[in-house]
Amino acid sequence: MTNILKIDASAQSEERSLSRSLTKLFIEEFVKHEPDARIVTRDVGRSPPPFVDGAFIQAAFTPPAEREQGMIDTLAASDQLIDEIIDADIILLGAPMYNYGMPAALKAWFDQVARIGRTFSFDLARGDYPIEPMLEGKKLVVLSSRGEFGFTPGGPRAHLNALDPAIAACAHYLGVAKGDIETIAIEYQEFHDERHDQSIAEARAKTIQSAHRICRHFP
Amino acid sequence: MTNILKIDASAQSEERSLSRSLTKLFIEEFVKHEPDARIVTRDVGRSPPPFVDGAFIQAAFTPPAEREQGMIDTLAASDQLIDEIIDADIILLGAPMYNYGMPAALKAWFDQVARIGRTFSFDLARGDYPIEPMLEGKKLVVLSSRGEFGFTPGGPRAHLNALDPAIAACAHYLGVAKGDIETIAIEYQEFHDERHDQSIAEARAKTIQSAHRICRHFP
Repeated sequence: MTNILKIDASAQSEERSLSRSLTKLFIEEFVKHEPDARIVTRDVGRSPPPFVDGAFIQAAFTPPAEREQGMIDTLAASDQLIDEIIDADIILLGAPMYNYGMPAALKAWFDQVARIGRTFSFDLARGDYPIEPMLEGKKLVVLSSRGEFGFTPGGPRAHLNALDPAIAACAHYLGVAKGDIETIAIEYQEFHDERHDQSIAEARAKTIQSAHRICRHFP
Repeated sequence: MTNILKIDASAQSEERSLSRSLTKLFIEEFVKHEPDARIVTRDVGRSPPPFVDGAFIQAAFTPPAEREQGMIDTLAASDQLIDEIIDADIILLGAPMYNYGMPAALKAWFDQVARIGRTFSFDLARGDYPIEPMLEGKKLVVLSSRGEFGFTPGGPRAHLNALDPAIAACAHYLGVAKGDIETIAIEYQEFHDERHDQSIAEARAKTIQSAHRICRHFP
């Protein structure tokens, strides 16, 4: 049975959100092939995770055996979010571009799941590269929408794209290798023109193809 | 009289935060030259702004004359944060790198201040580049800290730096031109070694120089 963690980061409702329409479509197509797939939805757009604070950092860097109950409580939300990642084979990330980067609520999620001893290990004996990921073998599909266009490498706004590089930089915390990230994005949202309509059609076709291709890799 | 908006985004307390130590140092040096400088502090680390949600987006894109009281209330926090930017000559941004990018609380701040009709205008008559900034002439000093090292262009972790490009992509909302961003960062924090001590010393020296240089440009 395949486990999919579906994360929706849009602040918009299902009716208005393009990224939510793509994550929904992916799941619909996937379950045509594997009706028993287990889908866990984490809606960070509607229910943003807490911001990390000083108490969180102190608790996270205290060895588990030495944590008092208050510290355990402080890390409870983070532990649950990480358990969802550990259980997942596929992470489906509905991530609209807000002001050229992640929605703040999505960054709050990444800041909760980047945890020493749970998603990465740290050892100065490794020299200048002390961090190593603890999870592996997961696939990440990023389903996105952008108000403008040209954010892919070589495009006129590639230098402004602070979303895809930020996700790539954090993917190792999710057990995702560099080559296991697939990104599909609707563009031209603010132009409301034919290019936007075409971009939606293309992104939907790619999302369907992605769901079919990925589900063949799983039992 | 020079107006400085000091933004601290660290989740850590003043005693533990390196970026807070640099913003504090900048102000101390600046007021030696201009004791009457007006300093406004916006502590997004301690008091994170609200996440944008569907109601925010709807209110922001409703023309001001058509907004009901509920919409005005929804935008009140954003309006205050934008007023602080408008009043500022210098924006001092204490921005630690968290998981290679902005602290989520800082992205929440950017998402609140990127506002149509207040910090940018949007006009499809401009063609493929419909967005133009509404503010100008401000100087941005980014005072940062990073756990690892080598995040500047050419460095071994330059490709992981999702903080500086994200700030640069949003700088126009703040009325800051590309050439008016200065970034000073402490590195090696997680190594606790001589390189870290040296990095702190260098960043402090650069911060003092920056404060002296910039204050000469203002009355």
